[in-house]
Amino acid sequence: MRGSGKADVFAMLAHPVGHAKSPGMFNALMEQEGLDSLMVPVTCKPEHFDTLWAGLSAMENLRGMVISVPFKQRAYQKCATAHPRAERVGAANTVIRGADGRWHADNFDGVGFMDGLAQAGISVRGQSVLQVGAGGAGASLAYCLAEAGAGAVTISDIDPARAETLAGLVAQAFPECDVSPGPPDPRGCEIAINATPMGLRADDPYPLDIEGLRAGMTVVDIIMDPRETPLLKYAAELGCRVQYGQPMMDCQMAAMRDCLGVLNGPKP
Amino acid sequence: MRGSGKADVFAMLAHPVGHAKSPGMFNALMEQEGLDSLMVPVTCKPEHFDTLWAGLSAMENLRGMVISVPFKQRAYQKCATAHPRAERVGAANTVIRGADGRWHADNFDGVGFMDGLAQAGISVRGQSVLQVGAGGAGASLAYCLAEAGAGAVTISDIDPARAETLAGLVAQAFPECDVSPGPPDPRGCEIAINATPMGLRADDPYPLDIEGLRAGMTVVDIIMDPRETPLLKYAAELGCRVQYGQPMMDCQMAAMRDCLGVLNGPKP
Repeated sequence: MRGSGKADVFAMLAHPVGHAKSPGMFNALMEQEGLDSLMVPVTCKPEHFDTLWAGLSAMENLRGMVISVPFKQRAYQKCATAHPRAERVGAANTVIRGADGRWHADNFDGVGFMDGLAQAGISVRGQSVLQVGAGGAGASLAYCLAEAGAGAVTISDIDPARAETLAGLVAQAFPECDVSPGPPDPRGCEIAINATPMGLRADDPYPLDIEGLRAGMTVVDIIMDPRETPLLKYAAELGCRVQYGQPMMDCQMAAMRDCLGVLNGPKP
Repeated sequence: MRGSGKADVFAMLAHPVGHAKSPGMFNALMEQEGLDSLMVPVTCKPEHFDTLWAGLSAMENLRGMVISVPFKQRAYQKCATAHPRAERVGAANTVIRGADGRWHADNFDGVGFMDGLAQAGISVRGQSVLQVGAGGAGASLAYCLAEAGAGAVTISDIDPARAETLAGLVAQAFPECDVSPGPPDPRGCEIAINATPMGLRADDPYPLDIEGLRAGMTVVDIIMDPRETPLLKYAAELGCRVQYGQPMMDCQMAAMRDCLGVLNGPKP
């Protein structure tokens, strides 16, 4: 039975938190593994974040947290130490408490994405990649693409300044990768990635110029629901190789699980 | 499956919290009822209580808390409103969040005790009662005994001043009951109650003068573990009616469950 007084406690912090998948997925995992552990969903109004964070930090039996929108940046700023992949995007999606009680930040958005591609046998090494979307998830992805040896990454965003800023930062961090801002046009690329919310709703416009897609290209969407976005449907019918959003989430969850040490929790 | 992002969250706050029974009991109940709810054990160093409380108060999806040692008094003080049975002892063992987001204090220590007696068909109305122990639980019990119409209550404590203070307060609240401090001697009483920790360990001295026990008297112990304390063993062998500690805990949990609205939580 999970949830005794001795339970290892983890939190999932977001606002709102009702839609968050992590608590259900982690609690199902803990149940399955026979652990006396819980992941508790936690939410607060953004203006109360500092107060909530201080309280959670005072909670001695809270081992770690999964962090989501809109708290990834503020959680990162609260941490004493950080993995470089969290530091370079200034955002945490996982925080763990060190032996000294202070928080350590990490970020598995890009890691999950790359692990998902690797599991599907897709390598970005030396490839030309179009990435549409330079927001929070997009930033993590772009760094990881460059880090994994992509030959060129074109970053596109409805806010051109945001794409330009991110491209500049990633190019600075990984000078061997040809990173630049550009239009959402996949012509000349081997891999096209949607890292925008476009496709969540059936009547959303395509996130990129589908005229530029060709059979044999790889098209990736980070959206999980619907599984088959209009972009992926079009790409699949065209003969592209498609990669759905779920593997990214699954791999991200596995990375968070290992970082949090969930499977090392006390047995009941 | 309990514990989705939409889960109703309850906390159990104590320091330490590992030994606390409520999280396990409530989580088992939620599981059994098919609720998407969690009770999370929470602990902090006493000097961090204010910070923790502020954080928990900022947590919008936290519906209520069970409070135990050493936080019952401080939790009570944080509440905006209180039931008279919490107010008169200045301590909360249950707090719920009102529609305005503020906390309401309640205390079911005495209620659970009285409900346990009632289930066993034991009435205190018009009876002479010896209560040994004037600490936190003892205070709740003494008020409830007087409130339920006990004819006389003698309160005994290793600290005579504590017994005298409590007796004075209860007598003031319920002038129709003859409440006074006195020695731990059950002679002349129909009911003798142990509300001290004496009996938790096998080599503890008896909490009261067993020479004063007589067959036919009712002897009650609030200690749950061991089930049969040396006092109850002696009393049973003598021919007294004995009441164990477990019914008090069961009834207290039922009262907390109803107060917290646990069974009204959202189904998954």
